[in-house]
Amino acid sequence: MRKVAIVGVGHSKFGRRDDVNLAELAFESIKPAIEDAGVAPEDIPLFIVGNAGFCEETLPAVVIADYAELYNAELLRTEAACATSSAALSMAYTVVASGKFDLAMVTGCEKMTELDTPYVVELIGRAGYFFWEFQNFGLTFPGYYALHATAYMNKYGATEEHLAMVAVKNHKYASMNPYAQFRQEITVEQALQSPYIAWPLKLFDCCPISDGSATVIIAAEEKAKELTDTPIWIEAIEGCGGSANLTKRENFVGLRAARVAAERALKRAKLTPDQIDVANVHDCFTIAELMAMEDVGFCGRGEAYKLVEEGQTYIGGKIPINVDGGLKAKGHPIGATGTSMIYNLTKQLREEYGSSNQAPIKNGYALAHNVGGTGHYAYVTILSRK
Amino acid sequence: MRKVAIVGVGHSKFGRRDDVNLAELAFESIKPAIEDAGVAPEDIPLFIVGNAGFCEETLPAVVIADYAELYNAELLRTEAACATSSAALSMAYTVVASGKFDLAMVTGCEKMTELDTPYVVELIGRAGYFFWEFQNFGLTFPGYYALHATAYMNKYGATEEHLAMVAVKNHKYASMNPYAQFRQEITVEQALQSPYIAWPLKLFDCCPISDGSATVIIAAEEKAKELTDTPIWIEAIEGCGGSANLTKRENFVGLRAARVAAERALKRAKLTPDQIDVANVHDCFTIAELMAMEDVGFCGRGEAYKLVEEGQTYIGGKIPINVDGGLKAKGHPIGATGTSMIYNLTKQLREEYGSSNQAPIKNGYALAHNVGGTGHYAYVTILSRK
Repeated sequence: MRKVAIVGVGHSKFGRRDDVNLAELAFESIKPAIEDAGVAPEDIPLFIVGNAGFCEETLPAVVIADYAELYNAELLRTEAACATSSAALSMAYTVVASGKFDLAMVTGCEKMTELDTPYVVELIGRAGYFFWEFQNFGLTFPGYYALHATAYMNKYGATEEHLAMVAVKNHKYASMNPYAQFRQEITVEQALQSPYIAWPLKLFDCCPISDGSATVIIAAEEKAKELTDTPIWIEAIEGCGGSANLTKRENFVGLRAARVAAERALKRAKLTPDQIDVANVHDCFTIAELMAMEDVGFCGRGEAYKLVEEGQTYIGGKIPINVDGGLKAKGHPIGATGTSMIYNLTKQLREEYGSSNQAPIKNGYALAHNVGGTGHYAYVTILSRK
Repeated sequence: MRKVAIVGVGHSKFGRRDDVNLAELAFESIKPAIEDAGVAPEDIPLFIVGNAGFCEETLPAVVIADYAELYNAELLRTEAACATSSAALSMAYTVVASGKFDLAMVTGCEKMTELDTPYVVELIGRAGYFFWEFQNFGLTFPGYYALHATAYMNKYGATEEHLAMVAVKNHKYASMNPYAQFRQEITVEQALQSPYIAWPLKLFDCCPISDGSATVIIAAEEKAKELTDTPIWIEAIEGCGGSANLTKRENFVGLRAARVAAERALKRAKLTPDQIDVANVHDCFTIAELMAMEDVGFCGRGEAYKLVEEGQTYIGGKIPINVDGGLKAKGHPIGATGTSMIYNLTKQLREEYGSSNQAPIKNGYALAHNVGGTGHYAYVTILSRK
C-alpha cells in the first residue's frame, strides 16, 4: 500500500442552515479544501460523498458533484449511519493507497433541519434495531444512550455531574470554533438544571440536529509532497461492524465495534494510545465520550469519568478530546461528522490554530473515533505529521 | 495494485418478493456465494452493501450484516443510483487490490415493491435533475429515456420495431433464467401492441420494479488460487460521473459518463471492444441497450439497431448481450443490478450454464456496463478467466 496524506481540508458553518441548499452547503467546504490543496476540480479522479440520506434529494452525490463541476470523477455515495464520512474516507484512502488514483476528495454533508424534527428523531430511531427496538418498543437514540449511561453509572460510580463536565468542556471549545453550532459556554449547574430527555440524560447531554459539511482531499505520497509542505499522513483507518440488536451485546458500558476498530487501527499504525496527542471521539451524548475514551484505550475501564473530573481531557491535560466542540456543541450533521473530525485533527497536527484551542503536539499523532448507529459501525482513523 | 479475482457468486430470485424481508432477500444470494467461495462469514474482513434506499430500513447494511452474522467486517453501504452495486464492487476491488484485505464481499440488494408503485416512480423520478426536471417539469424515467429514443430514432432512422426486438431477445433469455422476474417469451407484435408509457416507449420497452439481491466475493491473487480453480479476474472497474442536468448534455443519443467509463476500463484492461465475448449492458429501457452498445464501442454511432436487426446480439452473434434477460426481463432491483450482471458474467466465463443461454467463450473476456440515474453515474467492469 502506498503512503497517503491529507493535502486539503475545508469546513462549513454547522447549525440550522436554511440559507443554503444541499449543494451550496457542500460547496462551503469543497471550495476551501480545493484551495487548501491547490488542485482543480477537473483533476480529481474520485469523489465520494458521505451522506446518510436526511434530505429531499434522492441522489445527493449527483447534485453536489454537479454544483462543484466534478464531471470527470468516479462518483459514489457512502452511508454508515453517523460514521458515514469516515467510511467514505476509508474507501478513498484505500483507492489512493492501491495505486489506482493519486488524488481523491471526500465530502461529508448532511442537511437535517429541513425535515420536521419529530421525523428526524424517528429516522434516527429507526437506525437502531428497527424491528424490535424501534417499532415494538419505541426506543429512540437518547433512550439507547440512557441505557448505556445507567449501566456505566451503576457499574463504575460516575454521576450526572461527570456527564455535565463533558458538556461544559465541549461547549467551552465550541465557543472558540467559528464553525460550531453552539458558541456559548455553559456551567455544570446549567447542564444539571436542563430538562431530562431520557433519564439520566438531559438536554445538555445531547448533541443537536445540524446541517453542515466538511471536505478532505487526499493524495498519494509523491503527489502529496508536490502539493504541500505540511502533509498529514493517514497511518490507519480501520472499521468494524456490530450487531444492532441490544440483546446480542456483551455489555452496555462500551461498544465492541469501536473497541475492535481502535485495536485494529493502533496495531496497523504501530502505536499505543498514550502516543496520541489529541483526539476527536464520537460524543453524540456525553456518556458516549466516556465510553469512547475507554474503548480507544486512553484509560482503563471505569476510569474515564475520573480523567474528566481531573480536567485531563482539556488542552494541557493528558489527552485533549473534542477541542473543536465535539458533536455535542459543534453539531452533528450525520454525514459530515467523520470528515469534520479529520478537519480538526489536520489543523491540530499542522498547528494552524493560533488561539487557545490548539492542543500541544508532541509525538505528532492524532486519533478520530467515529461511531454509527448504536455501535453498528465504528471507524477509527490515526493521523500523523511525520 | 494486486490482482483480484471473483471467487464466489450468488443470486436471489428477482421479482415481487413479499415472502421475504430485506435481510432474508440478501441472504438468498449471500449463502450460495459463501458456499461457492468456500469461506466462512467470520473470515470476511470487508462487507459492502449496495442499496439505493428503496425500503423501510434506514440502515440496510446493518440488518443484512446482522442476519448474515458478519460481526467482524468493516461495514458500509454505497449508493450510486442504479449503478449502486458496481460502485460497491469498485470500492471492494481497490481495497483488496491495495493489500489492505485479502477478501471482501459485496451484496447488492433492493426491495422496491413493498413501497407503493406511484411512490417508487416518484423516487426514481427524483433521481433525475430534481429541482428543474422533476419538480418543475414532472419528468420521470420513462420520459427521460423517451427523449433519448426520439433523438436516436430521428438521427439514425431506428424504428419502434428495433426497440421491440431488444425486448424480444431479453425476454427469450429471461425465460431460460430461473432467477428472472419475467419468464415468458414475447413476440415483436406483442411488444408493439403494448400500451404507450412515454412515446415511443411502450410497456414492453420498460424494465419492471423488482426485489432481488446478488452477491460477489472477491479475493487477492494468492488467496483466490487457494480458494478456487476457476478464478474470474477483475481486469478493470472504471467509473465516471455526469451532469444530471439535461441542458448540459452534449447530445441525447448516448451517455457521456458511460462512454468515458468504457474507454477508461478498456484502456486499463488493454483491450478493444471486439475482444469481449459476452456483455451485460444497462437496458433499463430498450433504447438504453442500443445506446450502451455504441457507448461501449461494440459498434459505431447509429449502428446498434442494425446489429439488433441482424440478430448479432443473440448467442452465436457478434456480441451476445444480456443473455440473462437484462434489466428488461430479469428485473431491476436497483441496488442489485450491478452485482447481478457480475453474477451472470462470472457464470458465463466459467462456462457453467449448460443450457442454451451459455455464450461461446473464445477470448475469455466479459464486460458489464451499469448506469446510474440518467447518466449521472456509469461503471464499466471487465472480467477475464485468464
